Amino acid sequence: MSDFITIFDTTLRDGEQSPGCSMDTEQKLEVAKALVELGVDVIEAGFPIASPGDFEAVQKIARKFGDQTTICGLARCRAEDIDRAWEALKEAQNVRIHIFLATSPIHREFKLKMAEEEILKKTVEMVRYTADQMAKRPDITRPNVEFSPEDAARTEPDFLCKVVEQAIAAGATTVNIPDTVGYATPNHFYKVISYLKQNVPNINQAVISTHCHNDLGLAVANSLAGVEAGARQIECTINGLGERAGNAALEEVVMALRTRKDYYGVDTRINTPKLCPISRLVATTTGMRVQRNKAIVGQNAFAHEAGIHQHGMLQNRTTYEIMRPDDVGYVGQNMVLGKHSGRHAFRDHLKRMGHELADADFQQVFDDFIALCDRKKDVYDADISALIDKRSSQVPETWKLISFHTFGGSGTIPTATIELQHSDGRRIQDAAPGDGPVDALFHCLNRITQLTPTLEDYQVRGVSSGKDALGEVTVDVEHQGRKFHGKGVSTDIIEASGHAYLQALNKIAAGLGAKGTHAQHGG
Amino acid sequence: MSDFITIFDTTLRDGEQSPGCSMDTEQKLEVAKALVELGVDVIEAGFPIASPGDFEAVQKIARKFGDQTTICGLARCRAEDIDRAWEALKEAQNVRIHIFLATSPIHREFKLKMAEEEILKKTVEMVRYTADQMAKRPDITRPNVEFSPEDAARTEPDFLCKVVEQAIAAGATTVNIPDTVGYATPNHFYKVISYLKQNVPNINQAVISTHCHNDLGLAVANSLAGVEAGARQIECTINGLGERAGNAALEEVVMALRTRKDYYGVDTRINTPKLCPISRLVATTTGMRVQRNKAIVGQNAFAHEAGIHQHGMLQNRTTYEIMRPDDVGYVGQNMVLGKHSGRHAFRDHLKRMGHELADADFQQVFDDFIALCDRKKDVYDADISALIDKRSSQVPETWKLISFHTFGGSGTIPTATIELQHSDGRRIQDAAPGDGPVDALFHCLNRITQLTPTLEDYQVRGVSSGKDALGEVTVDVEHQGRKFHGKGVSTDIIEASGHAYLQALNKIAAGLGAKGTHAQHGG
Repeated sequence: MSDFITIFDTTLRDGEQSPGCSMDTEQKLEVAKALVELGVDVIEAGFPIASPGDFEAVQKIARKFGDQTTICGLARCRAEDIDRAWEALKEAQNVRIHIFLATSPIHREFKLKMAEEEILKKTVEMVRYTADQMAKRPDITRPNVEFSPEDAARTEPDFLCKVVEQAIAAGATTVNIPDTVGYATPNHFYKVISYLKQNVPNINQAVISTHCHNDLGLAVANSLAGVEAGARQIECTINGLGERAGNAALEEVVMALRTRKDYYGVDTRINTPKLCPISRLVATTTGMRVQRNKAIVGQNAFAHEAGIHQHGMLQNRTTYEIMRPDDVGYVGQNMVLGKHSGRHAFRDHLKRMGHELADADFQQVFDDFIALCDRKKDVYDADISALIDKRSSQVPETWKLISFHTFGGSGTIPTATIELQHSDGRRIQDAAPGDGPVDALFHCLNRITQLTPTLEDYQVRGVSSGKDALGEVTVDVEHQGRKFHGKGVSTDIIEASGHAYLQALNKIAAGLGAKGTHAQHGG
Repeated sequence: MSDFITIFDTTLRDGEQSPGCSMDTEQKLEVAKALVELGVDVIEAGFPIASPGDFEAVQKIARKFGDQTTICGLARCRAEDIDRAWEALKEAQNVRIHIFLATSPIHREFKLKMAEEEILKKTVEMVRYTADQMAKRPDITRPNVEFSPEDAARTEPDFLCKVVEQAIAAGATTVNIPDTVGYATPNHFYKVISYLKQNVPNINQAVISTHCHNDLGLAVANSLAGVEAGARQIECTINGLGERAGNAALEEVVMALRTRKDYYGVDTRINTPKLCPISRLVATTTGMRVQRNKAIVGQNAFAHEAGIHQHGMLQNRTTYEIMRPDDVGYVGQNMVLGKHSGRHAFRDHLKRMGHELADADFQQVFDDFIALCDRKKDVYDADISALIDKRSSQVPETWKLISFHTFGGSGTIPTATIELQHSDGRRIQDAAPGDGPVDALFHCLNRITQLTPTLEDYQVRGVSSGKDALGEVTVDVEHQGRKFHGKGVSTDIIEASGHAYLQALNKIAAGLGAKGTHAQHGG
């Protein structure tokens, strides 16, 4: 029995597939970098045949990070899917292809219209095909092939055993057991995995993996039950993103194994102080906020109200605390620095928060920090995190905001006046009305840039507390079937809104959008 | 073995106790009403000795809803706590008192500084005292007393058995087993409950209850494991609110039992189509948003992306759907009505959404709907829900907004000009600068009302999609140690912000705030 559980992150595939979560290639590269730093064992980077955007993202991630962790791509059990996945992945030093085929009676009958024998035949054929393709690369002696019988948790146990046995015999090195619709209970899922362990003769030649969905709130518990039964890989996502109610949350799975190592007897290689920073990166990148009472990474996860608890806490932290905030890189409202802190103290503080920035980036964040000190009395860690996030969204500025002005109120027509500069040097001024100043601002930006995307989502979040708190605005727009995301940060939410929307427009101008709809997999 | 699990909701006690969740008495009454309609068996309405505000809320809820469900109040194992709880609760027809005392070694040593024998003695004494007080009411023949050994999951099993046995012998009718710090795993918690079933001789004279915290993401799974071991009450909260990462989410527990009735063999009396409406009510009342990928009640819970899934869905819904959206009252982006729909169609539509409004309320919502149709092309169910929520926040208008005007932009000083009318007839105009138009608006409102609370939280949420979406703003402020919450809805988020902040100020003026800090229990 291995002491370590393989953490297979599918934020960029199953997570990105959920409504409202699209990321463009630059954003995916940024998340992939953070996943590498977090120490995940496998990154499922996408579904290459789904769209040219998916292909490109997988290829770039494979090239950039394939020497640091294993990069995986998804494919249906079809030669063209597998070819396309291999094409995207082949330059990664550590590479896996993940193929899937549904096995449950309901999927066989209504989706695939295939009999059991056909499923078995196709499985063997395509696992073998995948392994053969990969083995053509001279350095690959044992191709890393993962096979998923989709909707496994609802598949007849004996048929599931047959499929798994034959997949392993054909060359699958990981067999992943998805609870595709989030129907399993922990005991039920434990039995599914145990049954495989007991009844598949060659089961020890492959790693058993779990892939649990959270429709009934049980994804984490089911994954852990799988580990108790002998699974040694967990598929999961940052913040539990994924189709519908999402997948097992990586941060919960990892911290349950770590905190209850006494019970589970296994661990992961995850660098847990990176959990909160990556949670925040994924939340702001996708616009999928984490609720305040979310386990491990929520704003309240380590907050103790006054009274009895605090009394106990003062006596001994373990009366109410089973993890330390530092263990997960939790950034509270810890007060901080003022404008007199100086460069050196600021750099030290960033290091303590887990950020080591290159000089140019450091300078930009430091400048923003000094500017913020002029507008805000107390600067908190959360404010600094927002400044760092802001920096990391580097988008070519086709259009640059020179100045803007808005007004509105009862009995007036809210209006925005804006001057933008194009990268070719032209300066354009215009004005537009709207339902409110923000709406007017967006109209006016559309008018000047001559782009008219559909606004799909608009969110404002206070970064820290107090009347002078930084506001972080995220917008999601759709333009010609592609999704674009923009983010802005300011103490003035109108200004933050303008920056966020203009960033989305600049992404449209630069052609950086993520694909709209594409072929999907619900593993 | 009973076929029904008692659903004990503690949104108003453990939920309200968590940072950022304070509710005032009016809000608690509104949530209590919704809990009654949802069909919960017990409402834990508060901790009466904690503050005068808590006492008042429990008393009002007991008077108003005590004939429709059981109303419960919390007390430490002290006569004065119990007296105060009984004073608040005594007019409820169906009444329970819940007392607690920590039993784990770490709590005994560091918090209570009490030996095992003292714990046992105090338990018996106070359970008996509670029962005796309640039995003074002529109609009460068997007092409904719940006892919780706090941090039970970390208590030595044999000592826990002793405490539970003696509590039952002294008159406890429910024994609640809290995993106070969220440390248990499902198997561990199953064993804790099983051990009690096997080793406490009088265990069948009381109902065993679970109270699980979600620090490792396992609260729902642990509660269900408790049921498998024989527990017949689950303590839970709407949206999983509660200390730190919160309690077991009521909606998840209930839908897991309902969806997997084949497995668990029990059910609840919950009227599940009310789950999404009450989730939304609690989210907007407390300002604690639910994440989009939250199970059961999240925006994406029933969203299926395009592609493979939709193909399967068209063939047979059960390929990917284990619950129907209607089962939980899920309101998607289902398009709707326009301004020509008319009163009758609108009333029918509200009914279909689960809202039956009194005539005056209906008229107000209908008027708001017609006004909205003028500003917004497509009106969605989510917009209508927001209008209904807006109506339900009825606060005495000490100050009324007559008109406002804001401007801002680069190189200007953002400024707001406002005219308010006081309920005594005075009209006051003033102006103020700020970091942005919203900040200026808040400053100006402070200046006119001469109230200067601290802004603790500010959130904006797009209610539906599209550029003309309604924006819903919630603000939380603190004033003289008390918390106040305000909400505003408009297509103009500046206007919505002004309404939300003014509502909070009106609550201060009317003295409606919730208490700030108070004695707490982490059950």
